This record gives sequence, C-alpha cells and structure tokens, in this order.
Amino acid sequence: MNQDKYIFTLEVGVRDYELDSEGIVNNANYLHYLEHTRHAFVKQEGIPFGSLTREGLVPVVRRMEIDYHTPLRSGDVMLSRLWIERAGARFIFHQDIFKKEGGDPVVSAVVTIVCMENGRINRGDDLAERIAKYL
Amino acid sequence: MNQDKYIFTLEVGVRDYELDSEGIVNNANYLHYLEHTRHAFVKQEGIPFGSLTREGLVPVVRRMEIDYHTPLRSGDVMLSRLWIERAGARFIFHQDIFKKEGGDPVVSAVVTIVCMENGRINRGDDLAERIAKYL
Amino acid sequence: MNQDKYIFTLEVGVRDYELDSEGIVNNANYLHYLEHTRHAFVKQEGIPFGSLTREGLVPVVRRMEIDYHTPLRSGDVMLSRLWIERAGARFIFHQDIFKKEGGDPVVSAVVTIVCMENGRINRGDDLAERIAKYL
Amino acid sequence: MNQDKYIFTLEVGVRDYELDSEGIVNNANYLHYLEHTRHAFVKQEGIPFGSLTREGLVPVVRRMEIDYHTPLRSGDVMLSRLWIERAGARFIFHQDIFKKEGGDPVVSAVVTIVCMENGRINRGDDLAERIAKYL
Repeated sequence: MNQDKYIFTLEVGVRDYELDSEGIVNNANYLHYLEHTRHAFVKQEGIPFGSLTREGLVPVVRRMEIDYHTPLRSGDVMLSRLWIERAGARFIFHQDIFKKEGGDPVVSAVVTIVCMENGRINRGDDLAERIAKYL
Repeated sequence: MNQDKYIFTLEVGVRDYELDSEGIVNNANYLHYLEHTRHAFVKQEGIPFGSLTREGLVPVVRRMEIDYHTPLRSGDVMLSRLWIERAGARFIFHQDIFKKEGGDPVVSAVVTIVCMENGRINRGDDLAERIAKYL
Repeated sequence: MNQDKYIFTLEVGVRDYELDSEGIVNNANYLHYLEHTRHAFVKQEGIPFGSLTREGLVPVVRRMEIDYHTPLRSGDVMLSRLWIERAGARFIFHQDIFKKEGGDPVVSAVVTIVCMENGRINRGDDLAERIAKYL
Repeated sequence: MNQDKYIFTLEVGVRDYELDSEGIVNNANYLHYLEHTRHAFVKQEGIPFGSLTREGLVPVVRRMEIDYHTPLRSGDVMLSRLWIERAGARFIFHQDIFKKEGGDPVVSAVVTIVCMENGRINRGDDLAERIAKYL
C-alpha cells in the first residue's frame, strides 16, 4: 500500500475495557476505532457529523471488509489512517490501522458509505464538494 | 430482602462479548442489564420508552448504588428483578440480579431516576400515574 | 440465497443500549451478534469455546465482509442464521441476519476463521472433525 | 470537594460510539471511563494491572456509588480525577469527572475495591505498600 495516499491519521490508545476474555481487543471494537477515525476526519474538515444530519443527509455504512492482521493488547497505541475514493454515489474509505510502536499492520478495512436522504440514496454531491481535494 | 416486593422479573443470558479479560462480565455491563430490565418493565406496562420522550419527558438516572456479589461468566443466565418506590420527584428502582441456576445474588442496585422536562426536573406525576399500582 | 443451506438459527433481541445516537443499532454491534451466534452454534455442537482454548487452539477471525441492508431498531428481534464451508485451513462462516417480523435481510456477512496454535495457523482438523457433518 | 485531594488526573475524550439514542454518553460508559482512569493511575505508579494478576491478586470492584450531574456529548473532553483512601481491606477510590471546558462536574463516584486471592479477600498490604504515599 502506498503510504502517500493517506490523508488523515489519528492516534488512538487501547482502553482496557475494550479487551475480551482472550486479553486482546474484541473484533467489534475495531469498527469503533474506524468510525471514530472517520468522525475525527470529517470534524477536522469542518463538517461536524451533526450538521450533515440536520441537512437531512445521513451517511450510512453499506459494506465493510476487514482483514485482521495482528491483535492489539492492553497498553497498545495505534495509528489509524485513511484515504478516500468516490465511486458514483459511494464513498469508499480505505482505512488501515498500524501499531504505533513498530508499525505492524493491525487491520485493513474498506468501508463503503452512502448518503441517505429521506430513505433514498443521495448522490452525495454536497459531501463530495466538501472533501473534493481528497478525491 | 423480601422476595415478595419484586414486581417484575426478566431472564437475561450472558453474551460472550460482554466478558472482559478476566473471563467475567465487565462491571459496566451490569448497568446495561439493569437498564435493559427497566426498559422491558416500562414496555410491559405499555409505556414505550420513546413515548415519554415524545411528550417531552426524559427519564434520567441521577444516582446509582451497586453492590457486586458474584461475577457472571460465559453461559450464565440471570434473573433480573425490580421493585419501585417513589420519593417526591424521585423514582427509586430497587434492582437485584440473581443467577438463574442456584439463585446466588449477583448484584444489588438502587437506581434513582427523575423525569426531566425542558431541562428542569418534573415531578413525574404522569409516570407515577401509569405505574401507580406498584408504588 | 438458498435458505436450505442454513444449519443453525438463533433468535436474538435488540437491547436498547445497543442503539447509537441515530436510534439504530450501531454497526459494531452486528459483529457482536454474529460472534454470539457462532458461539451459540459451537456450544450446541458440544464444543464449548473454552475447551478449544484449553487444547491450545485459538479460533481467530481473519477476515470479515459485511453488507448492511436494513438497520435494526429498539424492540426488533432478529433471526441470526449460518452455514459453514471449509477452504483449506480456513473455515468460512456465512452468516445472515433477518428481521424476525417480516423477514427483511438485515446484514449478510462472510467471516473467515482460522485456528491458531502457539502463534501459527493450525489446519483445524480437530475442529473440522467435530463439525464434519456440516461441511 | 477539596480539589487538593486529587492525586491523579486523566484527560479523556468522548468517542461518538459511546453516545446512546439520546445523543448523550450512555450511563454505563462512565464506568468504563472510571476503570480506564484507575488502570492509567496504577500504570503510572509502575503497577501494571497484569502484574498483580500474575501474583495471584485480583483487584475487584465490590461497590460503586455514582452521582450523575451533567451528561457528556459528542466532542466533549473530560478530566477524570481521583484520590484514594484505605479502610481495612478496602481501597476506596474517590473519582470525579469534570468537563474540561468550563469545569462542570459530570459524575462523582465512590468505588470500593478489594484484592482477592484464591477466591478470598486479601488484606491488600502489597498494593497498599506500592501506593502508600497516597493513603
């Protein structure tokens, strides 16, 4: 993967209550980290998540592919990075998480998001405009 | 504790993702079980949680006391029971969780709830009326 | 999808604390439901999850693909169904969740699991033997 | 409350997946923040949580009292502070969370912890020694 593609990086620390009975971060929590990273990204772009909602646009996850490489454990800190592609009405978030120490890949995810408006898929031109420089 | 006081019992099974790295249910999840039980109770009484909200009343937890007796583990099933007291504007939910098998006490909680309306405490007379027979 | 392929169905109810600020079940919780279903399946087969672990075998999720169709809301009950395929050392769990009422598809997932033993991938023949009739 | 009593402060940001359907942090998540703060404290003291466990000592929460003052919302950052008292075999963690901006109190908690060893309460002298300067 071309490291230059990333347009956003968030540092996130594992919190002990995210561990499961194996002592590793539960698989579901990576979806939380990924969501948290997307929200931090749109916030940084001056697009508070709530503002989209008030305009009647609701970004929803339609599909997610995740490869799990190395599990995170207590005390680990991750770098959660992303880049974006647009494919018609779909926004594809390529999200990769690395261990901060050592740089080992933790998970790679491809997250497909569409904007809903009154229960129908919106082409998402408003959102695309605001993040145009990254597309 | 007088077993006769209980006005509602819900059977709830532990789900493995609720275990923490010690292999026991994480402390925070008991608050989930207790909340789930209160919601199931008001639903049974024909008071869907959402309906209160639509009337502008928001029941909020003001105080919670929990004693942890025995931890739950994978496969355990609990009986989550409650009885209610009214004290002025406060609704006191006395909630106890027992292991279904054997009956061991798991947690005892005293949960104080008030109804907010436009950011101020409401006396909760509407709610009290609907659950009058239990008070 | 061929309904006949399913070898296991679990009924699971949405619990209100699983809703996010949109009032729908948070995406990450579907991974919990899927995991819960796999554990219930292996338990039914007389393979308590812990027993594999004691034998030094740790089943881990390597890859997950999820399509989100319709979100679940407060009060919804789902039917979580699965069938299994073996592909070399990989066990592919095909997992689909439907609304109990109406039968609408909620999520479709393809979950790839491998058995680890001392940090290396095990061919999983022990596990395969125990679930041979389904493969 | 005497601000001078606090011996540890951790800054923690709300993550959006911690919000419930009211758009505020779900009550159970405050237990996560409080636990996370205690773990960060013992880690800072050079007592990795796991090390106690390896010595056969398991610190467990026996009782928790929480007062909820103001709910946290998306984007909020909190200061989570604590001081400790010893009462026989019990370690009392006094934990208060404040909004970083403005300083409003969010929750006040009194958390009682005991050390278990082989299923029996240990006097906790080892733990007390390591945190003696704070008692």
